[in-house]
Amino acid sequence: MTTGTIYGVGLGPGNPDLMSVKADRLLRNAKHVAFFRKAGRKGQARQIADGMFREDVIEFPMEYPVTTEIPVSDPRYNEVLSAFYKEVTDHLIALAQSGEDVVVLCEGDPFFYGSFMHIYTRVKDVVPTEVIPAITGMSGAWTATGTPITWGDDVLTVVAGTMEKDKLVEHMSATDALVVMKIGSNYDKVIDALKISGLYDAAWLVQFATMGKQTVSKLSEVTDKVTPYFSIIIVHGHGRRP
Amino acid sequence: MTTGTIYGVGLGPGNPDLMSVKADRLLRNAKHVAFFRKAGRKGQARQIADGMFREDVIEFPMEYPVTTEIPVSDPRYNEVLSAFYKEVTDHLIALAQSGEDVVVLCEGDPFFYGSFMHIYTRVKDVVPTEVIPAITGMSGAWTATGTPITWGDDVLTVVAGTMEKDKLVEHMSATDALVVMKIGSNYDKVIDALKISGLYDAAWLVQFATMGKQTVSKLSEVTDKVTPYFSIIIVHGHGRRP
Repeated sequence: MTTGTIYGVGLGPGNPDLMSVKADRLLRNAKHVAFFRKAGRKGQARQIADGMFREDVIEFPMEYPVTTEIPVSDPRYNEVLSAFYKEVTDHLIALAQSGEDVVVLCEGDPFFYGSFMHIYTRVKDVVPTEVIPAITGMSGAWTATGTPITWGDDVLTVVAGTMEKDKLVEHMSATDALVVMKIGSNYDKVIDALKISGLYDAAWLVQFATMGKQTVSKLSEVTDKVTPYFSIIIVHGHGRRP
Repeated sequence: MTTGTIYGVGLGPGNPDLMSVKADRLLRNAKHVAFFRKAGRKGQARQIADGMFREDVIEFPMEYPVTTEIPVSDPRYNEVLSAFYKEVTDHLIALAQSGEDVVVLCEGDPFFYGSFMHIYTRVKDVVPTEVIPAITGMSGAWTATGTPITWGDDVLTVVAGTMEKDKLVEHMSATDALVVMKIGSNYDKVIDALKISGLYDAAWLVQFATMGKQTVSKLSEVTDKVTPYFSIIIVHGHGRRP
């Protein structure tokens, strides 16, 4: 018997038409499909892949034991998550060792701020593992603005809204082009940092990039402070252009 | 008669299997395909798409009038390139206005340091234009290293090797994760900057990511200073991980 492979398959920014040819093929042929989700939700990754599976597919939803109930700074946060990752990877490894391939769905690109990396580090030395890169959410977002993100020698900086405000300002002030991920409940702090850095007026907010409900707005014209999970702020570079 | 559309189609990092489903479909159905290349070469983008076209495809190679013969700082560089972009976009616009769709092949992601943006800015207000995002070369490169590029709150900075050394050092010293594009003849300068920033020992060099001739090496173990066009330096972040 041959050991199966665990595939970390990037789904891209959300539109199934933007999956890679390889991801599309792996999904349509998979007998075992695993994906993260919040308890009681369908799951964003699962939603993107809707309608693509074999009829006899066996799904393995991996439900986060905690999302925002325990603060990240609390030691229990890491403890609870570590136990969770151990449990789900034990299951995935057992499947692979019984000869089955498993496709793990990953929103965006698996190695770019993804949850899959917590599985990856736990399985890669135990069973065959392959990662399929994908179009990042930020790529979907800057394409949606209709303006290139970087030109010539432009520096691109990607920051998470979860950072401290001072750090955000420091990085925003030093770059040409900017992407802010993980905005959510950090919206007010991110806006402040953008204003201090002088980037606020040039910033765009893209929500649900590449998906049916996509919205693209100048940040200064946004009235609703509640941004969804799939929201990204973009400031374009202005490098050399003939 | 309906005006045709100019599609800027991202091909991704180089492996045709990593094109998006949409890019794959557009390429296989295209009657008109345009692509940049150096005079006398087949062209990197054209090479990636080899074997995918309709039998009756009409190819339009757009040959750069200059690449490294005139320094970027010379005013003639911009003049010559501007005239070139005007000439090729006039042709693409004429095709669209005669009712034909045109696919323009773009290496990597069209809006991320791509040549397509010089076409895009000249055609987007004249004829219908659509940009198809793609997996970036850097995504292919960090996936090839077998290690995630960003975790938790990591900052990712992308710089071009063409920048001044002092600027390179400044950005390298301030980031968690790093990508260096456009290395080529800037190899020695980039190495110096990495050493000054303390990132040299942690850096990886990926050449021809996702393609058959892909190589992945610790930068400190690279002996050949001649890096090809498709080469990217990667330094991984080390953010929070349960």
